Amino acid sequence: MTPTITAFERSPDRGQGQARDMRVRWALEEVGQPYDVRLVSFEEMKQPAHLALQPFGQIPTYEEGGLVLFETGAIVLHIAEHHAGLLPDDANARGRAISWMFCALNTVEPPILDLQIAKFAERNESWHERRLPMVHDRIRGRLGELSVRLGDADWLDGDFSAGDILMVTVLRRLNMSGLLDEFPNLAAYVARGEARPAFKRAFDAQLAVAIAAAAG
Amino acid sequence: MTPTITAFERSPDRGQGQARDMRVRWALEEVGQPYDVRLVSFEEMKQPAHLALQPFGQIPTYEEGGLVLFETGAIVLHIAEHHAGLLPDDANARGRAISWMFCALNTVEPPILDLQIAKFAERNESWHERRLPMVHDRIRGRLGELSVRLGDADWLDGDFSAGDILMVTVLRRLNMSGLLDEFPNLAAYVARGEARPAFKRAFDAQLAVAIAAAAG
Repeated sequence: MTPTITAFERSPDRGQGQARDMRVRWALEEVGQPYDVRLVSFEEMKQPAHLALQPFGQIPTYEEGGLVLFETGAIVLHIAEHHAGLLPDDANARGRAISWMFCALNTVEPPILDLQIAKFAERNESWHERRLPMVHDRIRGRLGELSVRLGDADWLDGDFSAGDILMVTVLRRLNMSGLLDEFPNLAAYVARGEARPAFKRAFDAQLAVAIAAAAG
Repeated sequence: MTPTITAFERSPDRGQGQARDMRVRWALEEVGQPYDVRLVSFEEMKQPAHLALQPFGQIPTYEEGGLVLFETGAIVLHIAEHHAGLLPDDANARGRAISWMFCALNTVEPPILDLQIAKFAERNESWHERRLPMVHDRIRGRLGELSVRLGDADWLDGDFSAGDILMVTVLRRLNMSGLLDEFPNLAAYVARGEARPAFKRAFDAQLAVAIAAAAG
């Protein structure tokens, strides 16, 4: 059965691949699972029909027969559990890969979200410029620890996994900040993820939506 | 095999049960799995031996034979996968429960973390008092959406699940803020979680550590 995901009709990032549907598209491309996309407008996202799928009025959602999922972590985990290639067979290694999935979303992403919220919601506040270095330093703290752990490995723990999909896409949120360049092994890690054919297919698919929206 | 978790030797919350070991203790108590606890000092948490288990120098960790996990979401999921009672048997309901696990940690917790960071790291900054209402409003937004979805149900999706363990413990971080009282059904939901015998056993166990630390 072909799953259907939702994505922004007009993504705020205009096709840079930072919207969260990118995580799900990438996972589906890695495992070779075709999918359909239903585009939703900002108005539709706050309507009852979408809220029934996603209680917080966000994208993406994932529908497959009677199954409805929200939260990219849960969707990527579901894909990884039902297809080969995104979680190791060894039970202990599988547990570690899932640790990295939660780590990306609950340890590394929150300080990065804080920066994006500061830039989006607080950029006209009197304190914005003075507060920004503190926000940056909190991100640097996490990136420094992650950089030490990664070392010169290609991926977070052995082979490429669902943990890498989430970590790379979380780190890509820093693309415009310059912070990633302070940690060359993390910048190389993100570039390694972006170079995967499945990433490129997913990126091109979301970019096509953005181009169509700009033309319409 | 009895698993071993790590917890603060001296928890910053002095036994209010807001440190993250509480989530893991609660899950273990729900399924009736005995466990050992290794207490770590703030100094030890940043040493190589602990960083090998937890790259960010945090607690808890989970060791079970050759398995080493970090991130409470991954640990609670592991416990739920290996014992009955924390995930539904039905595949679709199981997927939804895992959606709620990620939702607690990636959608609801980040704005709450932002408040705790503001109070901890920015309380002496000139902007702190003026910025606080914005932080509160972002939390209110998420709580409002969660409140609508919960309605008058006991738990997030049918029976009590691992998703409720994570959501209740995330919402308990707001205990001192008064924000939860603005959403009576969420306050009742948290109280419902706290009333479970397994919660109480977990709470008492971490409180005993805090009392011993204060006496030592």
